[in-house]
Amino acid sequence: MTTQGTNLDQRYSHYADRTAGLAASEVRALFAVASRPEVVSLAGGMPFVSALPKELVSGAMERVMRDSGPAALQYGSGQGLPQLREQILEVMALEGIRAGVDDLVVTTGSQHALELITKLFVNPGDVVLAEAPSYVTALTVFKSFQAEVAHVAMDDFGLVPQALRETIERVRAEGKPIKFLYTIPTFSNPAGVTLTWERRLEILEICRSNDILVLEDNPYGLLYFEGQPPHAMRSVEEDGVIYLGTFSKTLAPGFRVGWALAPHAIREKIILANEAAVLSPSSFTQYVIHEYLSGSDWKGQIDTFRGVYRERRDAMLHALGDYLPDLSWTNPAGGFYVWVTLPENLDSKSMLPRAVKELVAYTPGTAFYADGSGRNKIRLSFCYPTPDFIREGIRRLSTVINGELELLTTFSQTAPLPVVRDSSLINPPANLS
Amino acid sequence: MTTQGTNLDQRYSHYADRTAGLAASEVRALFAVASRPEVVSLAGGMPFVSALPKELVSGAMERVMRDSGPAALQYGSGQGLPQLREQILEVMALEGIRAGVDDLVVTTGSQHALELITKLFVNPGDVVLAEAPSYVTALTVFKSFQAEVAHVAMDDFGLVPQALRETIERVRAEGKPIKFLYTIPTFSNPAGVTLTWERRLEILEICRSNDILVLEDNPYGLLYFEGQPPHAMRSVEEDGVIYLGTFSKTLAPGFRVGWALAPHAIREKIILANEAAVLSPSSFTQYVIHEYLSGSDWKGQIDTFRGVYRERRDAMLHALGDYLPDLSWTNPAGGFYVWVTLPENLDSKSMLPRAVKELVAYTPGTAFYADGSGRNKIRLSFCYPTPDFIREGIRRLSTVINGELELLTTFSQTAPLPVVRDSSLINPPANLS
Repeated sequence: MTTQGTNLDQRYSHYADRTAGLAASEVRALFAVASRPEVVSLAGGMPFVSALPKELVSGAMERVMRDSGPAALQYGSGQGLPQLREQILEVMALEGIRAGVDDLVVTTGSQHALELITKLFVNPGDVVLAEAPSYVTALTVFKSFQAEVAHVAMDDFGLVPQALRETIERVRAEGKPIKFLYTIPTFSNPAGVTLTWERRLEILEICRSNDILVLEDNPYGLLYFEGQPPHAMRSVEEDGVIYLGTFSKTLAPGFRVGWALAPHAIREKIILANEAAVLSPSSFTQYVIHEYLSGSDWKGQIDTFRGVYRERRDAMLHALGDYLPDLSWTNPAGGFYVWVTLPENLDSKSMLPRAVKELVAYTPGTAFYADGSGRNKIRLSFCYPTPDFIREGIRRLSTVINGELELLTTFSQTAPLPVVRDSSLINPPANLS
Repeated sequence: MTTQGTNLDQRYSHYADRTAGLAASEVRALFAVASRPEVVSLAGGMPFVSALPKELVSGAMERVMRDSGPAALQYGSGQGLPQLREQILEVMALEGIRAGVDDLVVTTGSQHALELITKLFVNPGDVVLAEAPSYVTALTVFKSFQAEVAHVAMDDFGLVPQALRETIERVRAEGKPIKFLYTIPTFSNPAGVTLTWERRLEILEICRSNDILVLEDNPYGLLYFEGQPPHAMRSVEEDGVIYLGTFSKTLAPGFRVGWALAPHAIREKIILANEAAVLSPSSFTQYVIHEYLSGSDWKGQIDTFRGVYRERRDAMLHALGDYLPDLSWTNPAGGFYVWVTLPENLDSKSMLPRAVKELVAYTPGTAFYADGSGRNKIRLSFCYPTPDFIREGIRRLSTVINGELELLTTFSQTAPLPVVRDSSLINPPANLS
């Protein structure tokens, strides 16, 4: 029946304008290689789900099928299972949040909340404020709705309030609408830093007085390594904050269950957008999590995860101190990530193929900026590999970095640096291997 | 900390333009009432999941946790689990579709495929062609991306080719881009009709020669009541068709697992859009379905479902013949729905509160048109209630309809019809009860 040949791009001109912004990550192909078992991957953000006893999940599933089978197999509410929403309130209470069960919308991971909220707010050309660096797939979502991202500087204490003021002023002077400030204030991805309490208050005040919504993304807050979990920004401000949470890091990402907590009018819109997008989030995985929370020591399980990640954080920081003492890096008090600054003249993206050749992978800094910044930054994840592998990974990384620096020194005395492209990964040019 | 009062609409002006199109269904509140157990609901589209033996699902879950626990709990691929995609090829082969495992993208129900594809293709003001009547939540998605829906007439043999030609001509004359034709050619929702084989070929030819993609949505195809399942449009045309399938009707909607089968370039974009929206569909529910398909007689289970729905379809058609012999309705050869035409002067939406008062619910026809058509149409679902309840529901419906007609006759001789609003549901005005 097909009379015309298959032209791979034949439909290209039919796409929506927003689709031009959707491109595969430049390092995607590389990460396929980096997933080979001999590579120590410090690149991904996969939680260490093996620290979750199988029987806790199996037991929850059995109870679901015994007690709630038909409901778990059926379509559900676009807002999410009420009894699970009740339990989410208990989870959020650990971070000082008080809310009602009607204020919550369950989503297909908190990623989908990001997508729905961006769909609800962003016209093409609208500005989203985002800390620099920001979570890579949030940037992808913003771009997919044609938002312009205006980055706001961070330091070791999180977003810099003065930088926020200046960015708002600059964007407004350009006449562009600002839709929200996107931030991961606690154990940020990728920077691994935490916004101080004083700054939380100051930033809320800046946003309030400028009528800017805060989109507080908090996947890691309960994975704190010392003391108590930092209180969320949402704990002090209801009207101006949409809070995103997830079970992906405290339980398992395979269920794809997250949530948004939003002021009434916005929450209603999120429900409608959720219904349009997926009808309802999975009843089945919501019931399983509901039974897990009802029948297990879930707080004890989070403590187990905290212990696992604390040990790995320590392994990474010690290894960095031992093998790369001349670099600087952040000192995360929780979460999954350390953010490392390489010498100014190194390019972490062009170095990545050589790192993979040395059997270690990381995420290049440029992935976390909308504007091409971050060339000499890298994100290292300590969430997935064991401490021994982390140490070995950092050792390999030090070999790569030192080799790169040596190369730079050699070439800078004689000739400009050779251009190295990602496509050199599989077969690096002989002169560089 | 909150210094300003809670103004429910304070953020309204900040929403994106597209959000203006997102409104709660007018009959949503009514359906909340209609879900009370004493009401026979012929309104919803819930599959009868109780016909699925629990132990089939429990067994699959046990095998998942035993053999694939960590992978099922982890993030997965944005394209979906490869071994599940292999099995989806076998499912689609029953409808004559040949494809490769790389051509598929697993989505969070086929609803999410609809959302992603609309996001990829539709600029504000672009036209989507859709059969009249169309699946209500597809219309919601199109509207949420500011598409203009141009309806194409159907009859008892499905979409009318000549109407399609004329609609294309008219829309093109207005200078508007047409992005795709959305259709449920087999056992359509809500009309319950099936596109004939000759028309499938003719419509594919019309779309091909006009360079218009066909979005073939096929949730019900395997729920045929006689003979063999109709072959999909995708079975004769690869380049110009995006095909959507789902496990919601042949297994259970609570897993939220559907798929899109698309030409190469488009499929790549769907994967990217899927990753942005949810990172990956649930690994857990994909593994459960994979194990279910591997270890159960899934074709036998579909036969069980077919038997259940055939019996209910028969019950509904007989009851209509017995209680409402003067009306006309479609005669579905599969699926979930009968589409009923009321006398011209009845308004099915304003009649609904009285129907619910008589303890029967249906979906008013206007829900299935973007243009306000369908006032004297109703959709009746035979998927969920047992045959006895279906018969009783139709009996109650006949009381409502006959009462309505009587009322019309009385009033038309003396005065205009009273205005009855949906809000009259809970306490109908005394003169109407």
